[in-house]
Amino acid sequence: MNAKQKVSQRKLMFFSGRAYPELAEEVASNLSIDTTPTTLRDFANGEIYARYLESVRGCDAFVIQSHTAPINKWIMEHLIMVDALKRASADRITVVMPFFGYSRQDKKGKGREPITARLIADLFKQAGADRLMSIDLHTSQIQGFFDGPVDHLFAMPVLVNYLKDKIDASNAIVVSPDTGRVRLAERWADTLGTPVAFIHKRRDLDVANQVKVHEVVGKVRGRTCVLIDDMIDTGGSICKAADALYEHGATNVVVAATHAVFSDPAVDRLKNSNISEVIVTNTLPIPGEKQFDKLTVLSIAPLIARAISEVFNDGSVTSLFEGDS
Amino acid sequence: MNAKQKVSQRKLMFFSGRAYPELAEEVASNLSIDTTPTTLRDFANGEIYARYLESVRGCDAFVIQSHTAPINKWIMEHLIMVDALKRASADRITVVMPFFGYSRQDKKGKGREPITARLIADLFKQAGADRLMSIDLHTSQIQGFFDGPVDHLFAMPVLVNYLKDKIDASNAIVVSPDTGRVRLAERWADTLGTPVAFIHKRRDLDVANQVKVHEVVGKVRGRTCVLIDDMIDTGGSICKAADALYEHGATNVVVAATHAVFSDPAVDRLKNSNISEVIVTNTLPIPGEKQFDKLTVLSIAPLIARAISEVFNDGSVTSLFEGDS
Amino acid sequence: MNAKQKVSQRKLMFFSGRAYPELAEEVASNLSIDTTPTTLRDFANGEIYARYLESVRGCDAFVIQSHTAPINKWIMEHLIMVDALKRASADRITVVMPFFGYSRQDKKGKGREPITARLIADLFKQAGADRLMSIDLHTSQIQGFFDGPVDHLFAMPVLVNYLKDKIDASNAIVVSPDTGRVRLAERWADTLGTPVAFIHKRRDLDVANQVKVHEVVGKVRGRTCVLIDDMIDTGGSICKAADALYEHGATNVVVAATHAVFSDPAVDRLKNSNISEVIVTNTLPIPGEKQFDKLTVLSIAPLIARAISEVFNDGSVTSLFEGDS
Amino acid sequence: MNAKQKVSQRKLMFFSGRAYPELAEEVASNLSIDTTPTTLRDFANGEIYARYLESVRGCDAFVIQSHTAPINKWIMEHLIMVDALKRASADRITVVMPFFGYSRQDKKGKGREPITARLIADLFKQAGADRLMSIDLHTSQIQGFFDGPVDHLFAMPVLVNYLKDKIDASNAIVVSPDTGRVRLAERWADTLGTPVAFIHKRRDLDVANQVKVHEVVGKVRGRTCVLIDDMIDTGGSICKAADALYEHGATNVVVAATHAVFSDPAVDRLKNSNISEVIVTNTLPIPGEKQFDKLTVLSIAPLIARAISEVFNDGSVTSLFEGDS
Amino acid sequence: MNAKQKVSQRKLMFFSGRAYPELAEEVASNLSIDTTPTTLRDFANGEIYARYLESVRGCDAFVIQSHTAPINKWIMEHLIMVDALKRASADRITVVMPFFGYSRQDKKGKGREPITARLIADLFKQAGADRLMSIDLHTSQIQGFFDGPVDHLFAMPVLVNYLKDKIDASNAIVVSPDTGRVRLAERWADTLGTPVAFIHKRRDLDVANQVKVHEVVGKVRGRTCVLIDDMIDTGGSICKAADALYEHGATNVVVAATHAVFSDPAVDRLKNSNISEVIVTNTLPIPGEKQFDKLTVLSIAPLIARAISEVFNDGSVTSLFEGDS
Amino acid sequence: MNAKQKVSQRKLMFFSGRAYPELAEEVASNLSIDTTPTTLRDFANGEIYARYLESVRGCDAFVIQSHTAPINKWIMEHLIMVDALKRASADRITVVMPFFGYSRQDKKGKGREPITARLIADLFKQAGADRLMSIDLHTSQIQGFFDGPVDHLFAMPVLVNYLKDKIDASNAIVVSPDTGRVRLAERWADTLGTPVAFIHKRRDLDVANQVKVHEVVGKVRGRTCVLIDDMIDTGGSICKAADALYEHGATNVVVAATHAVFSDPAVDRLKNSNISEVIVTNTLPIPGEKQFDKLTVLSIAPLIARAISEVFNDGSVTSLFEGDS
Repeated sequence: MNAKQKVSQRKLMFFSGRAYPELAEEVASNLSIDTTPTTLRDFANGEIYARYLESVRGCDAFVIQSHTAPINKWIMEHLIMVDALKRASADRITVVMPFFGYSRQDKKGKGREPITARLIADLFKQAGADRLMSIDLHTSQIQGFFDGPVDHLFAMPVLVNYLKDKIDASNAIVVSPDTGRVRLAERWADTLGTPVAFIHKRRDLDVANQVKVHEVVGKVRGRTCVLIDDMIDTGGSICKAADALYEHGATNVVVAATHAVFSDPAVDRLKNSNISEVIVTNTLPIPGEKQFDKLTVLSIAPLIARAISEVFNDGSVTSLFEGDS
Repeated sequence: MNAKQKVSQRKLMFFSGRAYPELAEEVASNLSIDTTPTTLRDFANGEIYARYLESVRGCDAFVIQSHTAPINKWIMEHLIMVDALKRASADRITVVMPFFGYSRQDKKGKGREPITARLIADLFKQAGADRLMSIDLHTSQIQGFFDGPVDHLFAMPVLVNYLKDKIDASNAIVVSPDTGRVRLAERWADTLGTPVAFIHKRRDLDVANQVKVHEVVGKVRGRTCVLIDDMIDTGGSICKAADALYEHGATNVVVAATHAVFSDPAVDRLKNSNISEVIVTNTLPIPGEKQFDKLTVLSIAPLIARAISEVFNDGSVTSLFEGDS
Repeated sequence: MNAKQKVSQRKLMFFSGRAYPELAEEVASNLSIDTTPTTLRDFANGEIYARYLESVRGCDAFVIQSHTAPINKWIMEHLIMVDALKRASADRITVVMPFFGYSRQDKKGKGREPITARLIADLFKQAGADRLMSIDLHTSQIQGFFDGPVDHLFAMPVLVNYLKDKIDASNAIVVSPDTGRVRLAERWADTLGTPVAFIHKRRDLDVANQVKVHEVVGKVRGRTCVLIDDMIDTGGSICKAADALYEHGATNVVVAATHAVFSDPAVDRLKNSNISEVIVTNTLPIPGEKQFDKLTVLSIAPLIARAISEVFNDGSVTSLFEGDS
Repeated sequence: MNAKQKVSQRKLMFFSGRAYPELAEEVASNLSIDTTPTTLRDFANGEIYARYLESVRGCDAFVIQSHTAPINKWIMEHLIMVDALKRASADRITVVMPFFGYSRQDKKGKGREPITARLIADLFKQAGADRLMSIDLHTSQIQGFFDGPVDHLFAMPVLVNYLKDKIDASNAIVVSPDTGRVRLAERWADTLGTPVAFIHKRRDLDVANQVKVHEVVGKVRGRTCVLIDDMIDTGGSICKAADALYEHGATNVVVAATHAVFSDPAVDRLKNSNISEVIVTNTLPIPGEKQFDKLTVLSIAPLIARAISEVFNDGSVTSLFEGDS
Repeated sequence: MNAKQKVSQRKLMFFSGRAYPELAEEVASNLSIDTTPTTLRDFANGEIYARYLESVRGCDAFVIQSHTAPINKWIMEHLIMVDALKRASADRITVVMPFFGYSRQDKKGKGREPITARLIADLFKQAGADRLMSIDLHTSQIQGFFDGPVDHLFAMPVLVNYLKDKIDASNAIVVSPDTGRVRLAERWADTLGTPVAFIHKRRDLDVANQVKVHEVVGKVRGRTCVLIDDMIDTGGSICKAADALYEHGATNVVVAATHAVFSDPAVDRLKNSNISEVIVTNTLPIPGEKQFDKLTVLSIAPLIARAISEVFNDGSVTSLFEGDS
Repeated sequence: MNAKQKVSQRKLMFFSGRAYPELAEEVASNLSIDTTPTTLRDFANGEIYARYLESVRGCDAFVIQSHTAPINKWIMEHLIMVDALKRASADRITVVMPFFGYSRQDKKGKGREPITARLIADLFKQAGADRLMSIDLHTSQIQGFFDGPVDHLFAMPVLVNYLKDKIDASNAIVVSPDTGRVRLAERWADTLGTPVAFIHKRRDLDVANQVKVHEVVGKVRGRTCVLIDDMIDTGGSICKAADALYEHGATNVVVAATHAVFSDPAVDRLKNSNISEVIVTNTLPIPGEKQFDKLTVLSIAPLIARAISEVFNDGSVTSLFEGDS
């Protein structure tokens, strides 16, 4: 006999780094599997050690890590996990990064800067990633930074679904906090059936890089403002935008964002602001001390689980959204 | 003697495809060199033949092509020229594409679309390009699509320099024709010291992909509107925006854009509109039949020539702009 | 449970560009499947837009395009389709190019020329092609230009099968129109059991690149000449060869070629020649106005369909031919 | 119907070069398959010709070659076989090299040396190898030279299993013949429960690269010495080590090594030494004229066969060893 | 004129990350240049921002970073700096890592582990590194992990030069703290003209991974022991080795190591040990609180500076050492 | 000072493998340099050791090896030399292979064969070759197998220059020994101003792969036949062709070929044939026992030296030939 034959099996295995195991558990639970037992620890000098405790040979691997602080450590752990999967003969490796670290550094704003978002995509490719899955990339062009398939998921349906029961859309307006998110605001406005506005940060011509005025472009007076963004980092931009909206006669400001980066002093700023509610997802961990009364955290785990399931079953991720992927 | 030594020379050579030889000649003239004699012709079945008539061994090659119609042919010619340079031992190859073809296809808008702008960047890399030079990329992220240095030049100084003598900035406003160019409009506004506005294309919720209203977000009444864009293709968007601005009380609309793609029926639309002046550069050829009275074409050749000169002399392209590259 | 298992399925999907949909339909029909619904159209400036209307995730994709005029456009469309398949997670991508565009530019004939056939192979590899399938490459070495498997199909059996009923092989001779196809002529002669001849284009030593005499090397007097070639482009070479054969006493000249490029003025030349029959395949489209009485077009679709089927089923493409692949 | 579906099959095929067909047959027999019929022969000028006589399309290919003399020829044949598999559409190619040729050249000992072991790994990658399988690499770091999975097998269990019935471990000591194998000796000692020693080759400070004394570091007097190494090449080092051990009072010296390179004059040296038994495996061929009375050859074929079987069945190669891979 | 010529200049520029600027300054001072002014800072969420404040176009860049804690952050900064250099058109990029982070993870000790040292080499290659320079790699094979030139420097001459005035070599012995450094110990012994010994960590066969006895192999009684290692991490191994040496009659123990990783509780252990002197280099920063009386830190900066100078001037790095590179 | 500047030097260094040092010396002599002192030797098991005895940092390296028997060994040595140059920081590496080993295996003649000529090109690329230089490739398409510049030199001018004084061109005819060299014969005929002929090896239809008749196609009666080929391997084909020419009335047969492979029994066949003179070049070594009276060996060294000189000086290799490269 010149050959041995057998029916080919596909085997889904799910792996998690140490950055945010609770989200991984929730995704795994939605998939009705367990995360694969894995040893991950730091050596004394901070180098990371990784080892899978079960054979991963031939599996369809999905490896999740939240790119939260300390962000460089968790990215490196993510890369090391991919390397270990590759060398242990995983059949296909999908890197799941709910928040794509360094995604804001997606272009050279000035000469002699890096394009770190492209670098990150290349590093994962080099380590052995076949595919990426991420949610609400800072710009859609980042999909093009990876040389392979990228499943780009959208949190907007999750956020809108929650919000539409809470506000009166007929008296609302969607607002972008700066000029970079106007297109996203437009998409929200189309979905909610509202008008759209944005904040123009007018520079002081006499002082370099100094914003003089937060000018509201659009008619917000007497309306509930849905102030949207892809992420909230230190919250400065969002809170100044909210102030400007109230100054221009907004009756209420609600904030909705996908990624709760919440670097200091974001929580203080948001708590002390006049914003009535802040709605985010759990793409990044929000420890107890960063939670506050008017914060609502929606789970992104069901969306990730469904996308993984579609990828594993050769279904359509596009179909998870209305005509979009 | 175990080795032969000589002082290393660097030799700048400049090459042009057939798409727009006039621009190449103008750049060459600014550089005080000639374009290298090159045979370029079509075989009977449309395949392109290329050959350089002088040795290019060891040269620092800059090869320019305007990605104009028939765009796929000229891109292919550009690629073939790069391959011939590589195989003829050019030392370094810089691809100069004043307008980056397919730059609008820089992301997957829907599932199962290509990201052709990344593909184009990869094809040039594969053919042998070491570096790219381009002007006003549709999005800055496209720089990150190329695995190597990209010199991203800006036409805004050229356009603003012309415009600031023609309008009264204290009574002007910069307007983006849609939500995608608001950030660019903001940069113009910062330079001119004007406010900023944009057109919100509100969708008809009952009809898919149907724009119901061109809503002006911002205060344009009584002002001269500087309607800006990176390119004018069929002119539909620009002309509808101008109409909306006049309806909202603009006293005057001037259009400024870098790339005059001018696909049909752009010229008719612009001629028949109330726009008072259209200012573009010659990154793409504008044949006589596409020129019209209120069109002003500024030459981009000096900018390209200076950038090439800086690259050749290891100077700073960043310094061509105010703190930007 | 640490892993989810399922039996792995393989799914054949077939895609076609716009160059020659009739051939694609014929192949699909031979395969008893439909071509996958696909949106393909030109933007106003000639850039091509592509999108697949069904999920292609995990499929074994075969994407066909005839590299006919406008050849650069159709090659670019072919590349874009591959990019879209790669980014949409097709499992394996086989590029089917019945005629390999630019295959004649397979070497540097002179210094500082490109090797465009290698470039084309590399561009498809870069775009995401895993494998190539093509028919009667201009030279067999082109297989070596692609870094991966190439299924090289031969039309000779199709052509010979038709021809052997039409001529008396015992009184025939196979003729190569120049020195480049003598080996191919020999293979035909071996199959038909005839002698072989060729045309020597003797150069004029006083005039560069000028052919002085079309000298017939071999004994054609009183015989039916089967003048063979891999392609007919403008027909000049073939018609001059036919003239020379009649001058040297051939009783009849029949022409057989795989690829009917038929650039102007091929059709006029062939119609007006003394050639009694021209036999080609439909690797390239032959629109009505290019057809003529003594032209016979044999379908290549069954051969392509069988090869695709063998590839999909891990059968043997080699076995389609007698000991050859 | 837009797609054709079928259950995916995996097919193991096994291939062997000409260096050591007997080992290949033994492995195949352990796998209950036949090696795939293959034509391999030398052209008159020594170039190697290869062709598989059956379709290998879609198979899971394992191709074995022993890197024995003439070693460069057999490595080249190995590479050519991989290229032929790649171009014939094998699905996955695992290169099995029981002894990894050039593995001793795994670093730059001096400036301007190559790192040939890395080169070999790269050449196989370039030719098309997806994975490597090898036994007792000269240094474990060589695993890291290949960009992909490496199955690193250990012969120690085979050798120890034989040895532990032959010696009294309570009165034995494991000895490394130089400082490079001390770690390996320690592993043996841990397994057998013995102490460990090594030979320090003290240099003569007055004569460059001259070893003055073979100093025994450790207590060997009155003990049975198990002198271990990964390979025996010319046997000089091993025999001098054995002499030194006897001089220091060893009662007996047994030699165990994985790879029997046995270059001249290894056999003479070993035969004429006081070593009581030499135990090796058959990773490399040992022709009749190289065999001698006190030589024991253990078969490595069962280990290779089990590893191939685990790889094919997505089992665990790690589990073949006690917690090690 | 078809080309512009100029004499080619080579320009050395030196860059430093934030991990250990003092070492960079010292190297720069030895080179009589300044480090290039560079902006490096953390965004609120820990992402790193980098920008060079001067043009780096065409320069021969050397970029140094000490891979100290927080090690993943500093490695990522190192990578980002390389990306920025590449995109800003540096001509050649040499990555200087005095201590190669993750160098101990240079093989798969067990199944399903990564080979992180190879990964690190690949990440730097991917980011744009042309060459690496490092000191005393954990294993020499790591040179082979990088696909390009590696300048591997040795600190031994620096350490020996200091030591030979402090001890009486005729009564000394070089000791390796485990079986992994015996070869290095041998090299020291050859240089100093002493015998050599090592510590055998005998495992407890009843308890997994438990070391039962630190057995001294070699004759240390009455001698000054030079206990050497490539790095001291937590110091546990070194201190236990020193204890064992004193127990076996050593009169004195001096420790020499290149890399002072000094993770907790290394400093406490060393201070409280009977070791008489600890000699290290400053490849890694040793802050004031980690310094102690019997610690001697020798500067590695002159060695790095000379190597950079040789590389820049196309001299010989090999010649910095005695016949070694 | 932020940067150190110096004028860039280019340094030519020339290296030779052990296959044919006499040719290397002759080339070096023509270049007025010495080959760089290099250690090359075989380890006991046949592995090759290489080391350069002088610094090669930054040099423009040309490394020559004749791919003669034992061909696999010399190719491997050639690869190892390239690896050592790359790792020792040579600036640019040009591989000079006067005869390109395995060049006849430039396509898949049958299914499941390798394309070894492409493999060889890829192996050299992988090892670190930037450029190739070779003479009279078996087919010109092989230039396209290498991803980089190939300097393809022609020996025809050398051979013709010698021959034109020895024969009367007006009564000569150039003959190709089979259908594969007809195009080359045509080029010779154009240069000498003679007609052309070829030998048709007619197959026996009843016996596979059996040549029945060597049929002369063309008029050779009464003429001096210049039988040309790119190489003479076993001489069988050439001698049968010569016999056929004499049978058809040739008055004289002279053989001219570039590569004297001369595998057994070539020399016996040629000596015993009626061929009046055999003219070859020394691209491959022809030891004394392979030389015979009617053999003329022309030196190829001046051509190689001139080409190397042009490459080093950025001159034109194309100009070495009449309009060809």
